[in-house]
Amino acid sequence: MPPLNADRAVLIAAREVLLRDPRATMAAVAEEAGMGVAGLYRRYANKQALLRAVAADNYRRYIAFAEAALSDTDDPWHAFTGFLSQVLDDGLPRLTLALRGEVDLDQGLLDLDKLAVDTTNRLLRGARGSGILRPDVTRADIVVILEQIGRIDVGDDVRSASLRRRYLSLVCDGLRAEAASRRLPGPPPHEAELIGRWSGEISSVS
Amino acid sequence: MPPLNADRAVLIAAREVLLRDPRATMAAVAEEAGMGVAGLYRRYANKQALLRAVAADNYRRYIAFAEAALSDTDDPWHAFTGFLSQVLDDGLPRLTLALRGEVDLDQGLLDLDKLAVDTTNRLLRGARGSGILRPDVTRADIVVILEQIGRIDVGDDVRSASLRRRYLSLVCDGLRAEAASRRLPGPPPHEAELIGRWSGEISSVS
Repeated sequence: MPPLNADRAVLIAAREVLLRDPRATMAAVAEEAGMGVAGLYRRYANKQALLRAVAADNYRRYIAFAEAALSDTDDPWHAFTGFLSQVLDDGLPRLTLALRGEVDLDQGLLDLDKLAVDTTNRLLRGARGSGILRPDVTRADIVVILEQIGRIDVGDDVRSASLRRRYLSLVCDGLRAEAASRRLPGPPPHEAELIGRWSGEISSVS
Repeated sequence: MPPLNADRAVLIAAREVLLRDPRATMAAVAEEAGMGVAGLYRRYANKQALLRAVAADNYRRYIAFAEAALSDTDDPWHAFTGFLSQVLDDGLPRLTLALRGEVDLDQGLLDLDKLAVDTTNRLLRGARGSGILRPDVTRADIVVILEQIGRIDVGDDVRSASLRRRYLSLVCDGLRAEAASRRLPGPPPHEAELIGRWSGEISSVS
């Protein structure tokens, strides 16, 4: 197997294990990946290095969805809501919540975070510019909305994903400018509230 | 102090303590209530008896809000959304989530549960009958929505309450029939999914 595919398999295994238990051991990740613990330590010097790799992978998946949506210039609203749906289907907010407080952000992750924020802001500008997204919704609102819906879990993965799509559909209807019965009350979340709460990692879903 | 007020003070103290930590001891509740542990045990024979009293109080508050909303026949939509707002402001879904799996439902609680379900269904019929609530939203949806929004917590009670009102306002816009861009995808939650997940107590916010 070429090295890249093996790396990918390890990251996928780590992601699955960490979603179930963010405090899982390197041994548990190695077992899920079907490799020895020593082999896992050859790739990642310690658990923090593995967590950072999983977090970076989460950012890259998020950014890839956002960039694909940005390239759909025909229908910015469809692109925007499709992006939210992909992010939820891929479990990105769930992983971010699971890793909350567990990852020490290094410069590489901070750079990815900035890129994720910038890409999201470009998407929001497109959706606002098309006149369909209500103007009083901010990027921080999207972070909180994805978290709210991402948490839905009825114990069965297929049903949970189906329910997440149901409530995303409801919220997307509420996000449209023509649905706004009044300006949303109260200020949106401040960056400090998001960071204070999630120790920075939440921005992987921002 | 007349006995009723003292009972009320104990329930309020228990509610506060259990919201912070559902596994809090009787001693912690007694301390918050400013009474001795022996005094608390004279009122409630054990922690389960106290938990049931707190859960019953939660149901009664919920039902009182729902009945007040039902009596507002002039504007069923305002009554319905105002009811959701009161339930969230009063912390009812948060307490239900905190007590999840901790309370053994007795007949008294089951009767209150049935009353809560019936009252909510009457409210939904009113909101649907007025043509404003989209027809594809069920009582189980309302349970899940209240839980999603009730979980929002940024560490500061005033800000958290403000953010909950913000997202309730957004969701209420999406709940309106005229906002529906398409039928909500996937079936709503089944009763069994709600009960399986929350061991029955969730119905205190249904």
